[in-house]
Amino acid sequence: MENLRQYLFAPRSVAIVGQSDDPAKTAGRPLKFLRQMGYAGRVYPVNARRERVLGERAWPSLAALPEPPEHVYIVTPTDAAVAAVEDCGRLGVKVATVLADGFAEAGREGLAREARLRAACAGSGMRLVGPSSLGVVDLRSKAMLTANAAFDETELPVGRIFAGSHSGSLIGALLTRGKARGIGFAGLVSVGNEVDLSLGDVCAATLDDPGIDGYMLFLETMRHAEALRRFALAAAQRNKPIIAYKLGRSAAARELAVSHTGALAGEDDVADVFLKSCGIARVDTFDGLLEGLPLLARVPATAGGRKRVGVVTTTAGGATMVIDPLASRGVTIEPASPATLARLSAAGIEVKPARMVDLTVAGARYDTVKATLDILLTAPEFDLLLVVVGSSARAQPEATVRPIIESAGAQKPLAAFIAPDAPAALAALSRAGVPNFHTPEACADAIAAALSRRPPRSSFASRPDVGGRDQDPHEGASGRVLDELAAGALLDRLGIARAPAVALDAGIAPAPSLPFPYPVAVKVLSAEIPHKSDVGGVALDVADGTALVTAIRDIGARVAERQPGVRVARVLVQAMVAGLGEALVGYRVDRDVGPLVMVAAGGLFTEIARDRSLRLAPVDLAQAREMIAEVRGLLPLAGYRGRPKGDLDGLARAIVALSRLADDLAIAEAEINPLIVRAAGDGVVAVDALVKLAGNA
Amino acid sequence: MENLRQYLFAPRSVAIVGQSDDPAKTAGRPLKFLRQMGYAGRVYPVNARRERVLGERAWPSLAALPEPPEHVYIVTPTDAAVAAVEDCGRLGVKVATVLADGFAEAGREGLAREARLRAACAGSGMRLVGPSSLGVVDLRSKAMLTANAAFDETELPVGRIFAGSHSGSLIGALLTRGKARGIGFAGLVSVGNEVDLSLGDVCAATLDDPGIDGYMLFLETMRHAEALRRFALAAAQRNKPIIAYKLGRSAAARELAVSHTGALAGEDDVADVFLKSCGIARVDTFDGLLEGLPLLARVPATAGGRKRVGVVTTTAGGATMVIDPLASRGVTIEPASPATLARLSAAGIEVKPARMVDLTVAGARYDTVKATLDILLTAPEFDLLLVVVGSSARAQPEATVRPIIESAGAQKPLAAFIAPDAPAALAALSRAGVPNFHTPEACADAIAAALSRRPPRSSFASRPDVGGRDQDPHEGASGRVLDELAAGALLDRLGIARAPAVALDAGIAPAPSLPFPYPVAVKVLSAEIPHKSDVGGVALDVADGTALVTAIRDIGARVAERQPGVRVARVLVQAMVAGLGEALVGYRVDRDVGPLVMVAAGGLFTEIARDRSLRLAPVDLAQAREMIAEVRGLLPLAGYRGRPKGDLDGLARAIVALSRLADDLAIAEAEINPLIVRAAGDGVVAVDALVKLAGNA
Repeated sequence: MENLRQYLFAPRSVAIVGQSDDPAKTAGRPLKFLRQMGYAGRVYPVNARRERVLGERAWPSLAALPEPPEHVYIVTPTDAAVAAVEDCGRLGVKVATVLADGFAEAGREGLAREARLRAACAGSGMRLVGPSSLGVVDLRSKAMLTANAAFDETELPVGRIFAGSHSGSLIGALLTRGKARGIGFAGLVSVGNEVDLSLGDVCAATLDDPGIDGYMLFLETMRHAEALRRFALAAAQRNKPIIAYKLGRSAAARELAVSHTGALAGEDDVADVFLKSCGIARVDTFDGLLEGLPLLARVPATAGGRKRVGVVTTTAGGATMVIDPLASRGVTIEPASPATLARLSAAGIEVKPARMVDLTVAGARYDTVKATLDILLTAPEFDLLLVVVGSSARAQPEATVRPIIESAGAQKPLAAFIAPDAPAALAALSRAGVPNFHTPEACADAIAAALSRRPPRSSFASRPDVGGRDQDPHEGASGRVLDELAAGALLDRLGIARAPAVALDAGIAPAPSLPFPYPVAVKVLSAEIPHKSDVGGVALDVADGTALVTAIRDIGARVAERQPGVRVARVLVQAMVAGLGEALVGYRVDRDVGPLVMVAAGGLFTEIARDRSLRLAPVDLAQAREMIAEVRGLLPLAGYRGRPKGDLDGLARAIVALSRLADDLAIAEAEINPLIVRAAGDGVVAVDALVKLAGNA
Repeated sequence: MENLRQYLFAPRSVAIVGQSDDPAKTAGRPLKFLRQMGYAGRVYPVNARRERVLGERAWPSLAALPEPPEHVYIVTPTDAAVAAVEDCGRLGVKVATVLADGFAEAGREGLAREARLRAACAGSGMRLVGPSSLGVVDLRSKAMLTANAAFDETELPVGRIFAGSHSGSLIGALLTRGKARGIGFAGLVSVGNEVDLSLGDVCAATLDDPGIDGYMLFLETMRHAEALRRFALAAAQRNKPIIAYKLGRSAAARELAVSHTGALAGEDDVADVFLKSCGIARVDTFDGLLEGLPLLARVPATAGGRKRVGVVTTTAGGATMVIDPLASRGVTIEPASPATLARLSAAGIEVKPARMVDLTVAGARYDTVKATLDILLTAPEFDLLLVVVGSSARAQPEATVRPIIESAGAQKPLAAFIAPDAPAALAALSRAGVPNFHTPEACADAIAAALSRRPPRSSFASRPDVGGRDQDPHEGASGRVLDELAAGALLDRLGIARAPAVALDAGIAPAPSLPFPYPVAVKVLSAEIPHKSDVGGVALDVADGTALVTAIRDIGARVAERQPGVRVARVLVQAMVAGLGEALVGYRVDRDVGPLVMVAAGGLFTEIARDRSLRLAPVDLAQAREMIAEVRGLLPLAGYRGRPKGDLDGLARAIVALSRLADDLAIAEAEINPLIVRAAGDGVVAVDALVKLAGNA
């Protein structure tokens, strides 16, 4: 839609359907906020039972208005809201925003209501925010289309940040916490259930707003990931950074997201991988979300992922409070190089060679701090300089804070944390453009997120069926499973070596001659039995032909007992393969983010410790190597402690090959487990594979 | 020392040695602070080169004073400080506090200076704080013996908390951040290098101060753990809670602690276990430290470790911000029971059955919130109730904050987090005694710490040689290693079963008859070779007598090649033992905290993932079972996913048995690896053990 940004954020006319006469009620707020902020457009309160609300004329219905308003905020209860949306569509309203809940999260009845909302949009070209939207706010146009009580203020600082949130309450939290520390917003939106416009869609509408420099996202789910990705890529092109806080690190929180929003909750590391692939910096602390953007704007999302942080401080204890969580997040605390120490020494600044440059002994004087910063900000060993100041920041800011402010223009990114309470110093740093933080945890969080950020991937597997589609959590989709022989043929096609195998009729006797030597493995061959071991369908180390016939018969008996109704018609006889170790390589099309490839060490511990690495598929060889390096359980195969090295290059090639399934719309899931890793140079060999077709294949 | 508390915190007379005439200088601060706060005792500035400082008479030396001051703060450079301490000792000063650094952290020369300080104390009965102490402060007596610039204020709120810190800068951070949120202190101390009085000693001196209700500790090391323990146990008896933040979660931070303080840094999980054994609640966030004590005071340190938190909220997104880190820390988010939901429903409050009680639909009105709190605070399924309020806390505090305040007296612990910025609401909650938090992370941190706290252990292994002793980081102590035969005898004594074995002369041929069947394992038997596999000193699955002779000869050859100079005189021949899995059980005397017992799953992954459980030794059977449950890698032996169960009771008994080495002063370390775990009821069998004697044994 052309002018979507205007209709959302700077409409020339608005209506509030269901506007109450009581400003203390939720439905009484929008008109109050519009008036007290001084919105200059035309405002139509709609209330079927009152002629006046809050001292203004009220209109009996949308149809009675002298014009179709550009943006209508509907604050009635659920059923009336659906009817009002339908009215809006008929009347030519451009954007409708709906406060009511009772949709996807309310079961089938709610889903039916959602369908009516969608139909109203489809039939008219109108766009819709919500339902369950606490509002759409632009602090410049003063279009305060919100029922969030936190907006009941007249002094709201206008800034250059746009905030998008799944949670309606949180836009109030961001607004007020921002105000308390001098952070202003251009606009904020609570997108609710995203029946039409998703979070990504709304943000994308603001991309060319010259008054917006960056984005702050509060995410509850990865629903509509495709739109989020489109927005993120476009934002990266415009050099507008995005910082995101996403709920769901814990299973308990993911479960809450389901009951709260009706969305299905994905696994958290999938969200991690997706956000990273979009160039979105994910933080783990709420203060990190609020305070991180200035740092993101200073740290380029360079491809290398260089993470060497130099630390200079007047308080070793205070600095270590930041270093501790930083190092725990994989950031390298880089000591000053001998050359840098020599430069400091030449400037008369004596510091001990250590992980951080500690000025306690040299003294927290202006000249010392200034000269130290000048030297460290030009030292090539640091990708970012962290300055941590102690009590002097409060008592003698001219000695320790002024030199930081004077370094604001340095090319090297700079971040500041002040150990004592020092609001004046922090405000001065913010005014000067020096990223600064209120807590050591938020400081570490934002630095780690900024240094981990990468430019977005330029290409993605095209999957029209995921990410953007409507989701019905009450439905499950499942496709057909291939038998192991067919799965093996798929591996052959992908170029992944597998153990030689032949299929035999289960009634065969005596054993035929095999094209590979004994001992062999025998496995039931049936698409109806994906988990063969669970039903006694596997025999290993079968020594000779006689034993083979017995093994086949035993498998038939066990399966008949444990899975009645399934007849064992055929078995797969496979060469036993030895190696240095094994891996698990998996592929699946995630409902939210599309094709994913995964590698783990396999075995029980992988499952217990959730020790795996994920990427969006397909991946290239470099990405596959990076994935392998992330799995702790694969360290032994990398030669840890003098062990023989496994063929990790072969493993990487297999990951790349499996990830190419992203181009094959027919495959929903594939898992090679185990993939035997032989000695370096000897390759990898798939011993078992499970392949599931897409529901429509 | 009698009256140590008075001499430290309420001295009748003080001297400042090295007091400068320039109040902007570090050495100029103490007198300034004493005067501007209005300290009422006698003050003697000592300055050898000036007759007056800051407008007052200065004394040329300590010897020239009309009386020995009770407490002397020495703010001169290092060498003069040592001399001043010696003067203090001679003159009968009760307590000297030293600002200068240049002691343990400065190598052998610094250690020699420390020895002089100690001698001065020992010879006189004087006690010493520091060196590297930024001071000792009592806000009631106004004894501002500090050079920390953050104390340069006249309006400092007096409270009932005592803060003890290894870091000098951090007492300023605690003071000012506390002041900003209305948290006052009774006193604060920066203990520096703890040459005489340790952090535990200083805190212990305040235990009977009726103006102190609880303790806030900022720890950099576990040095002088024994004194900390004594203090913690005495504090628990007086029902005065202790909350602690300890640096060193990351290796980088631990390294910094070494270079900064000269202390050796222990492993972080050792600190965890030690603090827990003392009943000290450890938090991970700085705000959690500052804001956590009121909650600790409400949550009894009951033995059960019951961790079921109920959540009620007007903002599902805001509540989930707290739930996410809470659940990640192992706290159970407990849904309201059917009975509780029925009570809510009977009161007209309709909420969906879910993990949290979400009042969004019911509405954030006073009556609703009050009735909900009344019901939830008497619901037996919750050990603690968390209330998370959204924008209404700011806009309509009478609706959502007042009912919380009115619930302050409830028997069930209550904690509040407010999503928007709401300083007035937080202040009101604090005044009413409702624990509340500024960030979701600090809220989760403090709740998890409070619910994890246990009463201190009542008995500890007595080890006069650890914890309280002086440490010289430049020295290492190492004791003799027992050969495997002697180690086996120790296991026999402890009652831990081991694989049958015989020692053979390495030159033996032919093989003698063995008291157990083949196949066997052969291992080089030498106290000089603790890591037998590394030198090719092990052969497994040796099938018969001929193979045994060959294996012994091969071992001799490999060891001769890889460890020249060690002659293989004897080997141990051992029965091969099969089981369902294995474990590693270890014992060692930690330099800081004393005897420790450890269990892990063994193998490479244990090492890579640091998947282990530690306790102070000795442990009882219940503790040993708890340890086993903490090791993820032992889950398979617990019957995970239908696996056969291992004899975890046998493993627990072995842990208990090994932990009894705490009574044996001769043993410094013992490790059984592997300890084979057989099927439930069949016991555990040690296959290899490494025992190291104490350095003096």
